[in-house]
Amino acid sequence: MPVISKKGRLMPSSPIRKLVPFAEDAKARGVDVIHLNIGQPDIKTPQAALDAIKNNDIEVLSYSRTEGTDEFRKKVASYYKVNDIEVTHKDIIVTTGGSEALAFVMGSIADTDDEIIIPEPFYANYNGFAVAAGIRVVPVVSKIEDNFALPPLEIFEKSITDKTRAILICNPGNPTGYLYKKEEIKKLAALAKKHDLFLIADEVYREFAYDGIEHYSILQEPGMGDHSIVVDSVSKRYSMCGARIGFLVTKNKSVIQTALKFAQARLSPPTYAQIASEAALSTPQSYFDAVIEEYVERRNILLKELSKIEGLKIARPQGAFYCMVELPVADADDFAQWLLEKFELNGQTVMVAPAAGFYASEGLGKNQIRIAYVLEKNQLIKAVEILREALKKYPQA
Amino acid sequence: MPVISKKGRLMPSSPIRKLVPFAEDAKARGVDVIHLNIGQPDIKTPQAALDAIKNNDIEVLSYSRTEGTDEFRKKVASYYKVNDIEVTHKDIIVTTGGSEALAFVMGSIADTDDEIIIPEPFYANYNGFAVAAGIRVVPVVSKIEDNFALPPLEIFEKSITDKTRAILICNPGNPTGYLYKKEEIKKLAALAKKHDLFLIADEVYREFAYDGIEHYSILQEPGMGDHSIVVDSVSKRYSMCGARIGFLVTKNKSVIQTALKFAQARLSPPTYAQIASEAALSTPQSYFDAVIEEYVERRNILLKELSKIEGLKIARPQGAFYCMVELPVADADDFAQWLLEKFELNGQTVMVAPAAGFYASEGLGKNQIRIAYVLEKNQLIKAVEILREALKKYPQA
Repeated sequence: MPVISKKGRLMPSSPIRKLVPFAEDAKARGVDVIHLNIGQPDIKTPQAALDAIKNNDIEVLSYSRTEGTDEFRKKVASYYKVNDIEVTHKDIIVTTGGSEALAFVMGSIADTDDEIIIPEPFYANYNGFAVAAGIRVVPVVSKIEDNFALPPLEIFEKSITDKTRAILICNPGNPTGYLYKKEEIKKLAALAKKHDLFLIADEVYREFAYDGIEHYSILQEPGMGDHSIVVDSVSKRYSMCGARIGFLVTKNKSVIQTALKFAQARLSPPTYAQIASEAALSTPQSYFDAVIEEYVERRNILLKELSKIEGLKIARPQGAFYCMVELPVADADDFAQWLLEKFELNGQTVMVAPAAGFYASEGLGKNQIRIAYVLEKNQLIKAVEILREALKKYPQA
Repeated sequence: MPVISKKGRLMPSSPIRKLVPFAEDAKARGVDVIHLNIGQPDIKTPQAALDAIKNNDIEVLSYSRTEGTDEFRKKVASYYKVNDIEVTHKDIIVTTGGSEALAFVMGSIADTDDEIIIPEPFYANYNGFAVAAGIRVVPVVSKIEDNFALPPLEIFEKSITDKTRAILICNPGNPTGYLYKKEEIKKLAALAKKHDLFLIADEVYREFAYDGIEHYSILQEPGMGDHSIVVDSVSKRYSMCGARIGFLVTKNKSVIQTALKFAQARLSPPTYAQIASEAALSTPQSYFDAVIEEYVERRNILLKELSKIEGLKIARPQGAFYCMVELPVADADDFAQWLLEKFELNGQTVMVAPAAGFYASEGLGKNQIRIAYVLEKNQLIKAVEILREALKKYPQA
């Protein structure tokens, strides 16, 4: 039998996917599984986006332009302008989700065995795209005790080699919920410039900034035009994860030209999704205000309920909709499986994301989980109650 | 300034893209440009697909399942059954266009510097995906004099090294229009088995088989379960290129499991496009009968009109909707640009795809062009007339 590539063998499996059969078994037993494991918002997609699809008059569903139409990209540029980010449509490539933007960026700036530094824990799929491109991820540890703030720059400095091509951050962070301070971004920018590296920021959660703190984009940092590359997406912003529309944004012309060649190979982003996304861009600020108010309430309730459980370490999130929690267990993978396989409280249990998959360093995060607070408040209260009771009963606690 | 990757510099630019500004200039001068250069069918998308989108009742546009829903994949499996291909939904991963299926396949079966043998001329983007994955394309020359039939197996044998992982064909071929005979597929299959290689077939033009010849899929060849991988798409079949829905199909479980890891990294294929595609799968055979009758008529008219021009070599196509033509010019790139920049006949000119970009071997195909016959018959007749007159006037002819 012909063999699978080494790359294919190295590609990480989704850590949550291993739990799916156990969740399905639990449901088959009649247990109600509350999902704290997924970043799929329950918020309704803006009506304008849904209507645009229903009212489309396409007769031949043809290829769209590789980089997205000028009109669509001009609207995206206007969105950035409202967010105090000065770019034109020529600095933007429309991609199939933020995922594809990330893949294009990695391909454009790094070769086989080149290195990208990423503060860990990080979005697990960064690793998948790196493996697919033959790139090495070099993690720099951020700590739950600091709410996953930017690690000291000295640690970044020590990690830089002649193979380093970029530093990649997620701001606000998935899975950390950490919102980088302006000063932290300025420090990272200076570091990137000093070592002539790209600074890549995944800013798909830009709007989800709480406690009155304003999100500071790497595209707002002066003098970083040739260094900064933003990966963006409509998925979380407008609760349209299924559209699969994202953006690669940079003022570096060589990166745009190169990424465009990767984009040409896959012809075009999905047409229907672009129609919905273009309409979504007209969503008024009031939509976000309501959504953010809702998430802040959910976060506050989650933190309040979690604080009632003894022995937890909780990273207070100020952005996105994730909360990292360290549990008094040895192996959160085992605990997560046990929750689905062996535990229930009044016919309910919870599914959580074990956090080891968000770390590149072997052994880190083994007792941590990520909770996505994308559920209604009552569900969250119930879910934390289940967690609390489960921790009392869990044999290896 | 930080530098672009070597991979990024090697990524091929679309050969047609260079011509786009000249086409735009021509249009700005008031010249009507007839497009023979693109594989975008003008055929109407099946009404059922368009209606399914208009009638969708999504309120939260959420992620779909990474590999596509069981229901959708079961419908895809039924489609294959109708085409005498025995697969189940577990042998299918839904992808974002055939493009993504190809990227997943390449990543799953080949590492950096591994080799894939492809008969040339071939679909130019194969090269793009290979470069992106760090894979070497090893071309085996097929000839316009043979209508681009399968080259002798000895040439394949000579090209096989210990780095060879697969042979990739497109059947029927883009850009060749060649429909492989059953015996040719059997020979390739035996070769792949003998050398323990994967045999990958891009069968997105499966239905477009003319002159009463039946398409023979590599999935129909017995004993090839672990070797055969098909890349497929709804794009051409249902004239829905803009959907961006394709399929990776193989009975090799390791390939499915590995490709699924690549698929997980990008979360899911686009939701709206899946709704349209699922509905399109119910398209009755009468739709294809009419479409194929139309293409056969177009091909016949194209061949008849081209035969009136002296000094051409024409590969008679029996599939897809492309026709390769060798012109009495030294440089088809220059000719194509000249057509847009300097020539017009009664206010019209044509845009063609220079064929050098479909060859991996330097210098081959420089005097060839690809004509896509996706236009109405009267337009085709006019377009060939323009070509004929242009060849009389072209200074380097």
